Amino acid sequence: MEAWKLKKLIKYRRVGELATKSGSVQTPFFMPIATKGAVKHLLPEEVRNLGAEIVLGNTYHLLLRPGAELIERAGDLHRFMNWPGSILTDSGGFQVFSLGARAQKRFGANGVKLSEEGVEFVDPISGDRHFLSPEDSIETQLKLGSDIIMVLDECPPYPCAWEYALVSLERTTRWAERCKKYFENQKLSLSQRPLLFAIVQGGVYEDLRKESAKQLVELGFDGYAIGGVAVGEPRETLKDILEWTTPYLPEDKPRYLMGLGKPEEIVAAVNAGIDMFDCVIPTREGRHGRLFIWNEQTELSNDKNASENFYKTINISNEKYKEDFSLVDPSCDCGLCSKYTRAYLRHLFTVGEPLAGRLASLHNLRFYLKLMERLREAE
Amino acid sequence: MEAWKLKKLIKYRRVGELATKSGSVQTPFFMPIATKGAVKHLLPEEVRNLGAEIVLGNTYHLLLRPGAELIERAGDLHRFMNWPGSILTDSGGFQVFSLGARAQKRFGANGVKLSEEGVEFVDPISGDRHFLSPEDSIETQLKLGSDIIMVLDECPPYPCAWEYALVSLERTTRWAERCKKYFENQKLSLSQRPLLFAIVQGGVYEDLRKESAKQLVELGFDGYAIGGVAVGEPRETLKDILEWTTPYLPEDKPRYLMGLGKPEEIVAAVNAGIDMFDCVIPTREGRHGRLFIWNEQTELSNDKNASENFYKTINISNEKYKEDFSLVDPSCDCGLCSKYTRAYLRHLFTVGEPLAGRLASLHNLRFYLKLMERLREAE
Repeated sequence: MEAWKLKKLIKYRRVGELATKSGSVQTPFFMPIATKGAVKHLLPEEVRNLGAEIVLGNTYHLLLRPGAELIERAGDLHRFMNWPGSILTDSGGFQVFSLGARAQKRFGANGVKLSEEGVEFVDPISGDRHFLSPEDSIETQLKLGSDIIMVLDECPPYPCAWEYALVSLERTTRWAERCKKYFENQKLSLSQRPLLFAIVQGGVYEDLRKESAKQLVELGFDGYAIGGVAVGEPRETLKDILEWTTPYLPEDKPRYLMGLGKPEEIVAAVNAGIDMFDCVIPTREGRHGRLFIWNEQTELSNDKNASENFYKTINISNEKYKEDFSLVDPSCDCGLCSKYTRAYLRHLFTVGEPLAGRLASLHNLRFYLKLMERLREAE
Repeated sequence: MEAWKLKKLIKYRRVGELATKSGSVQTPFFMPIATKGAVKHLLPEEVRNLGAEIVLGNTYHLLLRPGAELIERAGDLHRFMNWPGSILTDSGGFQVFSLGARAQKRFGANGVKLSEEGVEFVDPISGDRHFLSPEDSIETQLKLGSDIIMVLDECPPYPCAWEYALVSLERTTRWAERCKKYFENQKLSLSQRPLLFAIVQGGVYEDLRKESAKQLVELGFDGYAIGGVAVGEPRETLKDILEWTTPYLPEDKPRYLMGLGKPEEIVAAVNAGIDMFDCVIPTREGRHGRLFIWNEQTELSNDKNASENFYKTINISNEKYKEDFSLVDPSCDCGLCSKYTRAYLRHLFTVGEPLAGRLASLHNLRFYLKLMERLREAE
């Protein structure tokens, strides 16, 4: 039985349902980020009520604090943080590489040491050295009780030469194979078994993306992610990467575009056949007072080159909202927009009230989750 | 018709009901602090659901940002912040004096210039000079649409010589008279009329407290506050001040002890005949991870010298809670204690998640509001 079922196809857009050990999740979906076991400012029941059926937890952060063993003793991550839905955890690899520079700056030592065996890294807060192998990553994610676990991959920076991208993607394939082997050796029962996803790499090179996809599909996973995007490459390249990769991914498996993106990028990616997204944009932008506002009359395109005109962003701290006693977004049904004026929210940001970040996060997450609802409901 | 009605007397403890233009409030009550038009981290409906019927807004902070005129244009403070209950505003005087030193340090200029006419002060953020007279304070509070407004008083620091305390309390009386005159000249209708409270000063001197109370009662107000406490005086002195003052306050008017206090101080003050409280302790301590926990078996004393053994405080950041998978306070009915473990809350504080301050504030406010319920319900 396949975990993912297609329910409706709108051109290349796939509307379906993904079954995890914690329940079913409607696709395409957006995962709010619960990096350290909490969506910033928000309670699990609020996140659920905004329309989220799945959140993303960061293995790297949870591994360092409070530690996977502690979460395992608490039951699992669902029980530790009281999240009633499904959870996807990343492998930890992305932060090992992206936060390596920070550790290096602070502690002098080489922040990241990569070998065939795995990756050694320095905790940028404590300075402690850690080692993460593909097997360690899977073991950690199993302790967290995640519903969708990701293989450990190397995520090379942008730009990255073709030669290195090839070496890297081949190691990522070998690591994916080790992850799969370790995972299968656990002999988990069907009801306890998370889904295991592999991650396509290959940088900005068509031949390498294709090669990576083919190697991973050959090994066989429950789903496939497209990694190594949103690392600084030009925006046009993202469309190319999707074009190059998706034809080599099985039609009956879910596809996850990691770490993206802006609303129009999500619409374009859904229209190109992607099913799963995660991104810090709604919560992080919210904490900085930038809010997503619907253009009410605008239909969502079902084209791969979706336009941006279905929404706008406003910076609520702007002077012009000082005496704007209208609702933030009258067409939104979130807890902010049902009651609070732009003038009030601006005031909260101006004086630094913690409620500001909370209300703005609530609104922006609702915008993203409503966007996914609109994409799923479209004819 | 009196605004306050006594319903039950338990020794000196007064259980009653206070009618404001926004509704009735059960006494004795505790007011959560909404300094800048928001209780830190919490939504108005949450504060209401915790059991609060009235909150306190700070005239000083709202006057500077966003300004009383803006709030007036929004409707009033209730509508600006969406608070469905009653609001008490202070006069602004306390912060003018207590934050004067900060402004002086930052901008060099004399932070506070006191004259018979009023008080000139420097905004500690912008450096702008402002002037606040007794009449200005009342005008501002009327613009805010407050339900209980306070006269402008001078709040001398501790320690303060008898001679200065006398000069100061007599000016406070003259200012109270000007406030009352300005207030009455507005000729507000009964349904629009807030209650006007005077503030007893007189430092730590029995004769001066008595003198201040007598002068103000002679003028006649809707209620009486005891000010100039919690400014650094020894804890025993508080009991003395209550003993010296309350006999000179009318039995049929509500009594408000400003800015206090610890739970045992509130219990002792209620048992000495005080009806109203406000304090930053529950929310501020909460944000620092210090939580109030009930000792379940302990009755609340109805003695003026109430003991502290009905509760304890814990510092949730302590290492010993790292793997404590019990609920924070199993006898508490708040949104934290119904679901979240000590280990989880500790984790949130350790990694600096904003949800930590939110959950701890929620719990501590519930503790304080439940304390008031227990005091009102006692036989």
